[in-house]
Amino acid sequence: MKSTRILAIDLGGTKAAFAVLDAGGVQHFSSRLLLEGRSGTEVGELLVAETRDILHHMRQAHTPVSAIGIAVPGAVDNGYVWAPKIPGWEAYPLLNEIQNAANNLPVVIESDRTCYILGECWMGNARDCNDVIFLSVGTGIGAGILVNGKVLKGIRDIGGAIGWMVMPAPEAGENREPVRLEEFASGSGIPLLASVITKTQHDTATAPKYLSAEQLITAYDTDPLARAVIDQCIIWWGMTIANLTSIFNPEKIIVGGGVFGPATRFIPQIKKEAEKWAQPLSSRLYHLEASKTGQLAGVYGAARAALDLVSSQNKGKNVQ
Amino acid sequence: MKSTRILAIDLGGTKAAFAVLDAGGVQHFSSRLLLEGRSGTEVGELLVAETRDILHHMRQAHTPVSAIGIAVPGAVDNGYVWAPKIPGWEAYPLLNEIQNAANNLPVVIESDRTCYILGECWMGNARDCNDVIFLSVGTGIGAGILVNGKVLKGIRDIGGAIGWMVMPAPEAGENREPVRLEEFASGSGIPLLASVITKTQHDTATAPKYLSAEQLITAYDTDPLARAVIDQCIIWWGMTIANLTSIFNPEKIIVGGGVFGPATRFIPQIKKEAEKWAQPLSSRLYHLEASKTGQLAGVYGAARAALDLVSSQNKGKNVQ
Repeated sequence: MKSTRILAIDLGGTKAAFAVLDAGGVQHFSSRLLLEGRSGTEVGELLVAETRDILHHMRQAHTPVSAIGIAVPGAVDNGYVWAPKIPGWEAYPLLNEIQNAANNLPVVIESDRTCYILGECWMGNARDCNDVIFLSVGTGIGAGILVNGKVLKGIRDIGGAIGWMVMPAPEAGENREPVRLEEFASGSGIPLLASVITKTQHDTATAPKYLSAEQLITAYDTDPLARAVIDQCIIWWGMTIANLTSIFNPEKIIVGGGVFGPATRFIPQIKKEAEKWAQPLSSRLYHLEASKTGQLAGVYGAARAALDLVSSQNKGKNVQ
Repeated sequence: MKSTRILAIDLGGTKAAFAVLDAGGVQHFSSRLLLEGRSGTEVGELLVAETRDILHHMRQAHTPVSAIGIAVPGAVDNGYVWAPKIPGWEAYPLLNEIQNAANNLPVVIESDRTCYILGECWMGNARDCNDVIFLSVGTGIGAGILVNGKVLKGIRDIGGAIGWMVMPAPEAGENREPVRLEEFASGSGIPLLASVITKTQHDTATAPKYLSAEQLITAYDTDPLARAVIDQCIIWWGMTIANLTSIFNPEKIIVGGGVFGPATRFIPQIKKEAEKWAQPLSSRLYHLEASKTGQLAGVYGAARAALDLVSSQNKGKNVQ
């Protein structure tokens, strides 16, 4: 099994990461491509071309790939991918395309949420956990959830869409309408929240312009606007983690995605906020931690899914 | 198996229901006792005495009970019961007491939330569902949740405590602080909400006094206060169901408990409210239904858990 090579692909809304790993999780190759506005079959062609290249390269090195795992930003139904961030991917036949390009190697496609939690269980801070949540805050917000040791997918692989969770209105501002978690507490939402708070509380002429969540997080200690924005997000992230704690009574909640990173320093504040709301017994029992696999969670999880597929196929063979 | 007799006990905060069922779910005996303010070991003694009586009665009738299942309002840890509504039941040794009273018959204890979903899967509207939720709105609010065909319990059996979910403040009134779902949208909370809304909107001197959720539901068509209260609950119930839909992508959400019943007529309004918030694909895929087992959900679920225990013990014997 040491010589096993898995090609793992982590497809996002703007880029695709490729890696070749062995069964111990050691990475032997990696590459990264920007989608650069591609849509529909253009994205498929890009993935197929890079896949062919890598498979060829690995064969030449006498370490051929034996299975492929792919993480996609959406949901998978019988090999067809729904990925709302990629135009034209309502039911994209990715499994078929990759299998054709790979001479019918075993290929498995899972949602990024599924891959995050599988990856963190395999190589990160969720090892040996059966009831554990990976809360991913990036451009969007989603959760990979393990219940009784199995991934929660729901009936059409759309489970874990917690960016849609209802949250109270921002404390600042006139608006009293509830919001969706992802609306203002995600990588794409945080700069919007800055402009909402600027309008109601700050002098618009002199207020600094923030283009990214990371800029706001960096300015937390020096700019009152940045502090107001991030403090509001801490409340929402805390409430979200409280809801998940009450619902799942998990062993751990792991925070990751593009925003954590930089926001990892706020974990103690988020935990404190969550304590105000969560079921008190469950609140004492869970651990809140930053992801250890970080930006590699998707790649690790895709590889883990591929390894599991191979091992289930081998079991099938032994039985027959 | 037709001659199998199971004693099922559904313990609540104020009463205990007993039933003897066969493996087909047919009820052959039932009784009901009020706890009448009992606490600690007094509650245990009441359960033990009635259990002894029923076991004796069934032996005399030549249809002896072969296993006992118990639903409790809280959580179970290794046979010890935590039931916050029963004073003195922080870690009550119920399994041991009932086993002693029952000459070491097989006994299983599960939380009421677990029993509700098991009961509805066995005898109600959740048959053949693997991803399904029983949302119980009674004195409190909780959920029995099936993920991949298995009950979500969490690491200490406290999962499904959705009464703690964070909700936006009531639309009426001065308060802008978020609330917990159970605070105002439960059987015990609904009359409180009436008094909160009375204070802010209605003439306190002439406003009718409501003592129960059922009274308010009954007055929905005739009294504007009752309508304001229940409309607010419909919003919160809709948001809750939306959150559960986005998180679990379930096949069905079943509403039951003491409040549904009477509130079942509001299901279409609740569904409409949920549609505003839930992940849209999941929102189209799930069905919202009233419980078919109604007040028997706990009894059916306790019996089902006992039948499963017996069948797993028999399997164990066959293997040895």
